[in-house]
Formats: sequence, C-alpha cells, structure tokens
Amino acid sequence: MTGFKLFTVGPVACYPQVLEAMASQMFSHRSEEYRALHKETVELLREFLETEGEVFLFPSSGTGFMEASVRNCVKKKMLCAVCGSFGRRYAEVAKTNGREVEVLEVPLGEPITPDLLDEKLSKCPDVEAVAITHNETSVGLINPLKELAEVAKSHGKLVFVDAVSSMGGVEIRVDEWGLDICFSSSQKCFGIPPGLAVGAVSEEALKRAEEVPNRGWYFDLLRFRRYQERCETPMTPSIPQIKALNTILKLIDEWGGKHNYFDLYRRRNETIRNGVRALGLELFPRRGYESPTVSCIRAPEGVDGVRIYEEMRLKGFELAKGYGPLRHETFRIGNMGYIEFSDIQAMLEALEEVVSTLTGKAGGVT
Amino acid sequence: MTGFKLFTVGPVACYPQVLEAMASQMFSHRSEEYRALHKETVELLREFLETEGEVFLFPSSGTGFMEASVRNCVKKKMLCAVCGSFGRRYAEVAKTNGREVEVLEVPLGEPITPDLLDEKLSKCPDVEAVAITHNETSVGLINPLKELAEVAKSHGKLVFVDAVSSMGGVEIRVDEWGLDICFSSSQKCFGIPPGLAVGAVSEEALKRAEEVPNRGWYFDLLRFRRYQERCETPMTPSIPQIKALNTILKLIDEWGGKHNYFDLYRRRNETIRNGVRALGLELFPRRGYESPTVSCIRAPEGVDGVRIYEEMRLKGFELAKGYGPLRHETFRIGNMGYIEFSDIQAMLEALEEVVSTLTGKAGGVT
Repeated sequence: MTGFKLFTVGPVACYPQVLEAMASQMFSHRSEEYRALHKETVELLREFLETEGEVFLFPSSGTGFMEASVRNCVKKKMLCAVCGSFGRRYAEVAKTNGREVEVLEVPLGEPITPDLLDEKLSKCPDVEAVAITHNETSVGLINPLKELAEVAKSHGKLVFVDAVSSMGGVEIRVDEWGLDICFSSSQKCFGIPPGLAVGAVSEEALKRAEEVPNRGWYFDLLRFRRYQERCETPMTPSIPQIKALNTILKLIDEWGGKHNYFDLYRRRNETIRNGVRALGLELFPRRGYESPTVSCIRAPEGVDGVRIYEEMRLKGFELAKGYGPLRHETFRIGNMGYIEFSDIQAMLEALEEVVSTLTGKAGGVT
Repeated sequence: MTGFKLFTVGPVACYPQVLEAMASQMFSHRSEEYRALHKETVELLREFLETEGEVFLFPSSGTGFMEASVRNCVKKKMLCAVCGSFGRRYAEVAKTNGREVEVLEVPLGEPITPDLLDEKLSKCPDVEAVAITHNETSVGLINPLKELAEVAKSHGKLVFVDAVSSMGGVEIRVDEWGLDICFSSSQKCFGIPPGLAVGAVSEEALKRAEEVPNRGWYFDLLRFRRYQERCETPMTPSIPQIKALNTILKLIDEWGGKHNYFDLYRRRNETIRNGVRALGLELFPRRGYESPTVSCIRAPEGVDGVRIYEEMRLKGFELAKGYGPLRHETFRIGNMGYIEFSDIQAMLEALEEVVSTLTGKAGGVT
C-alpha cells in the first residue's frame, strides 16, 4: 500500500474484491479447477467483446500481444497508424521482429482519420495488416476505431487493435467492426493488477498464421488455439490475474452490465475534464477526440508538468506524468479502476491549490 | 481456494504471507515505489544466485526466458540436452524460432552426463550454446549442472539453464559455475503464484546479443538492460508477483537463509521418498539422480498412474499426473511451496490406502 489515491494510467487502483481474488490459494494449471476458471473467463470475455471468435489469455503485458500479431500474421510488411508513443511502439515491435513497416503519422494531439487511412492504404497496397491504437494513452486521445476498421477492411487488410487503455472502459464490438486481433492488458480499464494480456483473435487471423513461418513458441497463436480446446494455455498462465479478471467481469454484471460500467467511466471522465477546464486548463488532444479513460492536460504556461505531478504526490494523489516528448508540457489524469467520485472532488481541489501556487495566482511558493 | 493439500509440481501452495503480498493495492510501474521494489528484489536475487551479473524480471512464464535465450544469443545453431519433456520443449522453442538444433538425448530416467556432453560437443563444434535442463520436472530427475556447465565452457559455448523447478530449492552458483542464462519461474521453488519469470544473464550473453539481429521487442535482453539501469522494465511488470517474490526472499532470510531453505526441501523430499519406498514403490529416475523437488514414482504393476492421482484427489490431496509419455506409467509428488511435515505424513497415509486398494492388497474396490 502506498497510501496514495491513484489516478494513474495503469497499473490502476483495484477494487477490494479484486485484491481478495488475487490472494487466492493456488492450484495446478492442469487441474479441473483451472479449466473451469479458464472456460468461464473466456466466455465472459467473448460476451463482453461481442465476438464468436477466440479470446486468448497471455501471461504477458499487452505488448506481448503486439509481438504476437506481428509474428503470427505478417509475412513481410504492415502499416502502423501512429498518433503517439504507443503507436510508435507498435512500429518498433514490427521492425525489431524483422518486418517492413509503413507509417501513417499525425502530429501529436491529432487523431487518425478514416480519410487519412484510406489515402495511405491506396499508396501502399502491399501491406498485409493495419495496426491502430484505439486509445493512445500517451496523448489521451481516442481514435474512431469503428470507422478506421471499416476503411482497412475495404482495402482487404487484417486489422490489429491496441485496445490497452480502452477495452473494458468503452464499447468495442469485435465481430461487427471486423477486428482481427484486438488486445488489452489487465491493469487498465478492467482494474486488475498487471501480468495478464487478453485478446480477441479472428478466424481470418488464425488462417493467416498458418502461412507464416517462424512464429516462435511463446506467442504462437495456433499453439494457443490447440490448448484453448481443452481450456488451457501452452505455458503456465497467470492464475491470480485470471481469477481477478473473472471477479471483475462478474462484478460488472452485478453492477448492471458493461454499459453501466462504460457510463461510470464516462461520468468520472467528464467530472475530471470539467474540473480541469474550470481551473482554466486545456486538454491536449483535438476537441472531440479526448480519451474517455485518460485525460492529457496541458501544463499552464511556464509550469513543468512533472512539477504538477510531484506536488500532487505531496498531497497524496498519484496522477501520471506526461509521456515521451510531452513529459514536461503535459500531465495526465486517469479515471480507470477503483475511483470514487468523492476522491475525484478531493483530487480536483488539490489540483486547484497546486496550479494556483505554481502559477503564482494565489501567491505562495513557486 | 480448492481445499486440496497441494503436492503439485507448480503452481504450488503459497505461504499466507505470500498471498497477503499478492493482495497489495497497486501503484504505477513508473513510480518511486516500484523502482524501490524492483531494485531490492533484484539485489536479493543476485545474492541468492551468487551473481554479479544482471538478473531480469520478465512478465512471462519460464518458457518466455527460453525464447529470450534463443532469440538473443543464438544466430544459427545450438545444442539441446534432452532427458525429458522440458528439454524437448527447449529444442522446440529453438526450432520454432528458426534455429538449427543439435539434440543430445538420453532414455527417460537417465541423466545427461558430462562424458556424453563432452563427446557430443566434440562432434558438433559449430553450436553456439548448450541448453541444459537442471531439474527435469517431467521425470523427476536432476542433472549434474556444475559439471555439465564446466564441459560446455571448456568447449567455449554459452550455457543456458532451465532451472524452472530447481532455482530456489537447491544451490545454484551462477558465476562460479559459468552459467550465461539461468532462469526460473515464480510458481515452483519460490512458492509464489505464476506470472513472473526471473533469470540471471551474464555479460557474455549480453555481448552476444549485440551481434544477433531480429531479437524482437518483448524478450530483447538489451532493452531489459537499458531499463534495468533505472530499476524498471520495458513493459508493465507483474507487480504482485514481484512483491510476493520480495516477500518470500526476505522470509527465507528470516528463516535462517537459503541453505536452511534448501535443507527444508531436502528433508521434505527425503520424507516423501522414504515413504513411497516403504510402500514398495520405486522412483522412476536412475538412483542418485532423483530430483530434490519433484518425486516421479512408478505406478505399481497394472495400475494406471492417473488413477492414483484421481483417487488421491478424492482424499483431498492434489499430486501431479505423469507427464507426456509417462502419463500412465508414473505419478509425481512435488515438495515445493507451502507444505507442512504433518501434511506429508497425512498424504503418505492416504497414498498407502490408495495403493493398497488399487493393487488389491487390502481387498476393496478395484
């Protein structure tokens, strides 16, 4: 326990029931007990993601699923749509795995639009797949996934989606939107500790994998499918995190279903956004594309975003620093996991004091 | 909680203090709190493994470290010493990652001996590395690691060690024995839940990695080294399992240090071995090479090992089935994790009943 109130961008604070699940005594991953847990959790996820396809449980972080998509489904070349650090990471994963990468990049704060993607795909018809960051955590921006997937599909491409900071917090309809690989990790909107990645994988993606050599062992999707048939994984899975995921998915049902949960996230997010705007601060991304799970806020003129992060820690609130090139220019406030509205109010009050002090508006130390 | 007393071969039962650590509230992996935890845990491990080299924390199972060793340190060809299913897995990992593999294989139950390795290496001087399974979980056999590493080193090869079911339970001196990559996972002798792999990596292995292209992103050792400098990992780490590992390493110190812990394992193992021999059962591996962490036992003539496993479950004890080709011929009893001597006695008594019944010695159902 650090004692901080967490408004992090992951790992995020977990509900008590989730932490209790994490403390469960272990059992064998080749036992009836494990198979029952695996089966139920996968079924809950398939329903949550609205897919008839496979949903795999990886003992890895979300980046592991990026590597899986590249090694299993790209023979030679793919397109990465980049609007921030995690889009750039996707390109890096592809390159370090020996693939050629076309990049569609927009300035920080701008979304990937369907028109831009359509234009780019017309110029590089030889890419086999398109990687889209649904919610770019580094700039607090959400891309229009449904429309982007539609464009990619109209060009006949596989669609890979990094949904790390969106899955669980906003609607994703895997089958209807035509997503071939759509993954996330445990420590974001599902609000459970890190150590587990989950991802939906389409029949088409699996068929493609059959033609790709040198897929490796650890992230081989066909190997995962073979073990999935008996409700197991090829290697020892992260049982505590799977148990915790099972717990939160059932809690979400108890709380009225996923749409209520999405609504909760939206309301938290709006409270934070309205609160920071009331302090005279601006959100970083273009209006209309602000993330519903992570608010990326411009630091006031002349104030270092890292300083705001540090001062908020002294008041007992852990926000997130700006990421990569935006480290000093911005700071971020997540609204994922276990957060009460009373904590949001307290956080906004603390932020008002910090901003006043640092901008000298209320006098005091600078 | 399944309610079973666990004598599994991993995941194993965890001490209450370990489960409590698993339930800790989360914090950011880019925070001071994480860096302090990371630093301390790595230092404790370096001391435990007697190495001045790097020790990395992977969010993966142990097999992830196999893949890392192959992708980072083998350009073309390696030798895998195979005395069971996990040695075979190493060869599979190498092949699926596009490497050529020489195999030194012995019949099930036999160890890899220094002479055999020396002879084999003389015949294939072009291999770059040798993979050795320290403790072959599938057959309950321990190989003479120190001597094997000495032979491999005398041929100038890198030494990779799968220490999944030995590290933590028996002595391993990484630097003195010249081990270049020596890995394990959390859910075996350390007695913590699955979801974390740990591995020592030598300077020579890291130097070799600099010459190997296409190392990928997820398991790139050089990327891990860069982040290690600031006590972080490239991706989000499995924080609960790291916290649990930190807890058990400190507990082991409190209990009198690692040699006491090894001794505890040895005494548990001897109690089990003597107990099963007293029932007229035989251990599977050649005498003198029995594993100190997993006992692999021949099922009595005409009795299916799986049946023994199932009958023991009915009595509240979870053992492990035979593995792979030995599924029916053997069953296994682990002595890792949280096990009391009184539980061993109770388990042996239950086993006596089960064996008597199944062999018809005491009459009853068959």
